[in-house]
Amino acid sequence: MKIIHRPGQSENGELRWQGVPVRAYGPENSGADRATRQVLIGADENSPHFHLRYFAVQPGGHTSLDQHAHDHGVYVLHGRARLCLGSSNDEYEISMGDVIYIPGNEIHQFSTLGDEPFGFLCIVPAQR
Amino acid sequence: MKIIHRPGQSENGELRWQGVPVRAYGPENSGADRATRQVLIGADENSPHFHLRYFAVQPGGHTSLDQHAHDHGVYVLHGRARLCLGSSNDEYEISMGDVIYIPGNEIHQFSTLGDEPFGFLCIVPAQR
Repeated sequence: MKIIHRPGQSENGELRWQGVPVRAYGPENSGADRATRQVLIGADENSPHFHLRYFAVQPGGHTSLDQHAHDHGVYVLHGRARLCLGSSNDEYEISMGDVIYIPGNEIHQFSTLGDEPFGFLCIVPAQR
Repeated sequence: MKIIHRPGQSENGELRWQGVPVRAYGPENSGADRATRQVLIGADENSPHFHLRYFAVQPGGHTSLDQHAHDHGVYVLHGRARLCLGSSNDEYEISMGDVIYIPGNEIHQFSTLGDEPFGFLCIVPAQR
């Protein structure tokens, strides 16, 4: 069955979709109120191959320093961030419209830059 | 190896990314100049699980009437379109920020509405 999620009223500079639960995304040290996660296409949509999530990180916040076996695709919707990538800790500044592909097992962390929340779409394999 | 595609100068109201080839996407009857496709994450990025593409359809244009075994995830970046879906030809008007999940084997077609190009991200399984 098809699903259409329509945009809702934004909150704290973060995007929302009608009927999609907002989950706190609280890696250690980020502050529990500094990041949220919304699953736009996932298990509820019976999507067997890929999932699509939206993450928003408030100014001063960051995502956890992650290393997953699976890969990630990222599309930046708003704001700016510093992306730390790989075991050599390479740093990149990323902003709206950037597309990033992070292969499996690559260490990665996003830290919001500036005064606006940083928001991005994240694609991952459904099996992970 | 990670990939970052940065936005480039837009053309004809369509988004562009630096170094990403623009391909004509010319389903029958859409007019060869009315739709383009850019692969943002695909075989060139060695992405084994999912691919991410951007499609843009000029006013008056449409995508082909497609039915694929695989599923699609769609995120609308700009413009408006009529989405015809399923064998019963259900119609939905979609616009910026809408998220659509189209299961495998579902018939679908996007037709641009209004005077602006319609542009969307499309996620598909890498194996299809």
